[in-house]
Amino acid sequence: MSAKTKIFTAAAIIIGNEILSGRTQDKNVKYMAEKLGGVGVRLAEVRIIPDIEGTIVQTINDMRAQVDYVFTSGGIGPTHDDITAESIAKAFSVPLVQNQEAYDILLSHYKKKEELTEARLKMAMIPEGAELISNPVSGAPGFNIGNVYVLAGVPRIMQAMLDSVVPTLKGGALVLSKTVEAPFPESKIADALGTIQKKFPDIDIGSYPQYIEGKHAVNVVLRSIDQAIIEQAKSEVQALIDSLLST
Amino acid sequence: MSAKTKIFTAAAIIIGNEILSGRTQDKNVKYMAEKLGGVGVRLAEVRIIPDIEGTIVQTINDMRAQVDYVFTSGGIGPTHDDITAESIAKAFSVPLVQNQEAYDILLSHYKKKEELTEARLKMAMIPEGAELISNPVSGAPGFNIGNVYVLAGVPRIMQAMLDSVVPTLKGGALVLSKTVEAPFPESKIADALGTIQKKFPDIDIGSYPQYIEGKHAVNVVLRSIDQAIIEQAKSEVQALIDSLLST
Repeated sequence: MSAKTKIFTAAAIIIGNEILSGRTQDKNVKYMAEKLGGVGVRLAEVRIIPDIEGTIVQTINDMRAQVDYVFTSGGIGPTHDDITAESIAKAFSVPLVQNQEAYDILLSHYKKKEELTEARLKMAMIPEGAELISNPVSGAPGFNIGNVYVLAGVPRIMQAMLDSVVPTLKGGALVLSKTVEAPFPESKIADALGTIQKKFPDIDIGSYPQYIEGKHAVNVVLRSIDQAIIEQAKSEVQALIDSLLST
Repeated sequence: MSAKTKIFTAAAIIIGNEILSGRTQDKNVKYMAEKLGGVGVRLAEVRIIPDIEGTIVQTINDMRAQVDYVFTSGGIGPTHDDITAESIAKAFSVPLVQNQEAYDILLSHYKKKEELTEARLKMAMIPEGAELISNPVSGAPGFNIGNVYVLAGVPRIMQAMLDSVVPTLKGGALVLSKTVEAPFPESKIADALGTIQKKFPDIDIGSYPQYIEGKHAVNVVLRSIDQAIIEQAKSEVQALIDSLLST
């Protein structure tokens, strides 16, 4: 397949008990999805998993075989519950080693050698063969090994790391998206919308019901890599909605 | 194991291209996590997957074998992209049949038989043997088959459905949670916090760094089913933080 027709996919693995306990609202998935979509890489699956080594190792190995790129967030800090780097090393069957470049970054961040406590030095322990991903916010780097990109969990830091990685990714055609809204329940257009979907098999037509302040509405979202076809299908959806509104 | 010591677990499967495209911010995971935690059921994993039948079938079958309860959200409406019910039927190898109770609910909701279009009748197609979960907002029910609970995607409706299911679940001991905040980077307490974690192996101590408006801070979250031990560990964490703040 040519680079134009191949679909490039990614998976996000959010490592963090705080999301699974409901204590924290995840904010990383949406950012990753939009940022990757912007370079023609489609988020194909997200897994939110706990800080358990066996689970991290298995999830990494499952996902890296299925998609072009895997992005993890969380667990690369200095505390006892930060076990992502050692889990990734196990997933790739490589040793976890002190990375000289990461050591130098930490030394420059903390200024004095005596500030490099055992916990802080943990942040220089990187799977052998990995390339660092710089962290402009707090020093401790992420890293890339194989098709896996290991990022921080704090949204501001994750975003900075992802922003620096994204220009290096190879992506496919950009997916264009158009939305048409209607102020009634989706069931009102469901049959006719199915007919339009059949007529345009290369467009992904999604129907997203909403229920806000006691009122039903629907957003019809058309997604495709072909501008002309998407405009044509959008006109048909708009005409369908207009005809129902005028009756 | 007794009901007191057994840990009850759940998985959430969020079915929806709109989350994976970044168009919509997921709001269902946090609600599910908190609500389930409130009856002693721990969310062990979340998967966000696209509206693709093969993916739904495989994810359902993977997860229902691993946890006590599986909750899905999304894809039970009347449009062509709503394929959850038929995918669940395939996962359980049962036929998808018109459910009389669901038909009656729809008829009562839409008033006249001629309003029951082909698309709307799709919402009465339920895997054989499933029990309905009522939808107080828009009529179309969810359902429960085996240990899988199939809920709507619209947050308001998902919440109402989950609220009606939760009292019927068997859960374990409630996990208590205490948080201690500190206005400095987590690396400052990382070594000592690791020592406290070792001293209290039955407590799950999480360290969650924050970076807000250019300032580092950390939330230390202690989680356990034992009130006395959690208070004891919390005192030690608080004393550690206080000693660092006074130097």
